[in-house]
Amino acid sequence: MMKATDIVVVGAGNMATRLSIALVECGYTIVQVYSRTIESARLLASRLGEQVLYTNNLDDIYQGAGLYIFSISDSALPDVVSRMPSNNALWVHTAGSMPMEVLAHKTPHYGVLYPMQTVSRERDTNWSEIPIFVEASTPDALHIIEQIATSLSTNVKQATSQQRKALHLAAVFACNFSNHMYAIAEKLLQDQGLDFDVMKLLIRETERKAEVISPRMAQTGPAVRNDVNVMEKHLQLLQDTPEAALYTLISENIDKYKKL
Amino acid sequence: MMKATDIVVVGAGNMATRLSIALVECGYTIVQVYSRTIESARLLASRLGEQVLYTNNLDDIYQGAGLYIFSISDSALPDVVSRMPSNNALWVHTAGSMPMEVLAHKTPHYGVLYPMQTVSRERDTNWSEIPIFVEASTPDALHIIEQIATSLSTNVKQATSQQRKALHLAAVFACNFSNHMYAIAEKLLQDQGLDFDVMKLLIRETERKAEVISPRMAQTGPAVRNDVNVMEKHLQLLQDTPEAALYTLISENIDKYKKL
Repeated sequence: MMKATDIVVVGAGNMATRLSIALVECGYTIVQVYSRTIESARLLASRLGEQVLYTNNLDDIYQGAGLYIFSISDSALPDVVSRMPSNNALWVHTAGSMPMEVLAHKTPHYGVLYPMQTVSRERDTNWSEIPIFVEASTPDALHIIEQIATSLSTNVKQATSQQRKALHLAAVFACNFSNHMYAIAEKLLQDQGLDFDVMKLLIRETERKAEVISPRMAQTGPAVRNDVNVMEKHLQLLQDTPEAALYTLISENIDKYKKL
Repeated sequence: MMKATDIVVVGAGNMATRLSIALVECGYTIVQVYSRTIESARLLASRLGEQVLYTNNLDDIYQGAGLYIFSISDSALPDVVSRMPSNNALWVHTAGSMPMEVLAHKTPHYGVLYPMQTVSRERDTNWSEIPIFVEASTPDALHIIEQIATSLSTNVKQATSQQRKALHLAAVFACNFSNHMYAIAEKLLQDQGLDFDVMKLLIRETERKAEVISPRMAQTGPAVRNDVNVMEKHLQLLQDTPEAALYTLISENIDKYKKL
């Protein structure tokens, strides 16, 4: 029977790094790290312990592990999986938009552990309440994946590949795209010699309001007030930049959402 | 010499409400509230004290006040100001994108008090650190406006009309537009029978990362990784909705910002 005691981590990016560190802190043993570049593999391995092996060669991946965790970009995942030899261990990926079946045909035991959080290599992650969505090919595989997930977080839920895809898409809007809105603000302020710091309280309050009230109810600003005067002035300021096109499209969509 | 002891508030929206309540808590006396609709005027007046007058008729605005605060939409401001009789009091507006001069020709003493925060009628505002940007027609007017602002917040700064316009535009991106990204996520989740609650930790962490690292440095997600595979899947999910157009445009802009 498969066990999750000896783990090989495939990937050394933000999620692979934070997840590996958390697993080691929970008492799991990571035996090897694979990354396309030897330097990132070495770096992550060194953060996980003195004994941890590392490689950038898929042929050198240790075949005696109980669990293989694939935490690489969705684009790279099918190719990397196809180049690995089959075995009887548990294979798990952490990708939001890849079906669990990308791991089938290599082992009977496979599944997904999708932590819905934005993580950085160099910033500590507090795992205790992060929603983790799990899915597996068999009840046994599900049991082990749930065990691992609940050792990280109290917020573990099952989700189908289809639900996980919607969660990932929603997360791109709520996290990646809202962060880009901050980045545009940062650039507009820098152009005027002003610091993004001045926005901190505003973005904190925006996030809190969305938590307490629903985002649709919390919407403020010229677009939802249909304050054409302000919007015209803003578009004049933005001139013919790509940000002007964004300003128009987002404002139109805010107006649409009033009628939902 | 003008004094800010007796205040008339013109407007009864989100900002007028929160600002009036804060001023009363700081010991200022509001004598009258004007709003286009008598019901909102009455409602705000009743929240400010039993003695506070209210009207929806510009001709009935009390002419003996020391300070007139205009907290109405940018679109409405020039018209409302033009319909008021001139006097010798201090006139102040709170709009991000209107020049201070919209109040000129009515009194020699005018200026701006622009609190850069998103506020709601029904949600308490913690004023103590909110950035307030001030500007005035004369040193005396500036002195009084600064006094009022510093009684509300420790974070008072001077800004020209031009800088304030850039601040307001940046705030629309950082606050209103990031909130709309949350609203899109909320809708996508609702379509799958999932609750927006699941996003709370993610949006909190996104905001915190932007505070600690800069937003441009904190960018994660398929667009910044150029993960074409994921982006194609997301666009398939979004089909021909307006959100698909937004997804493409924002992703392209995230890519552009990598090269800045």
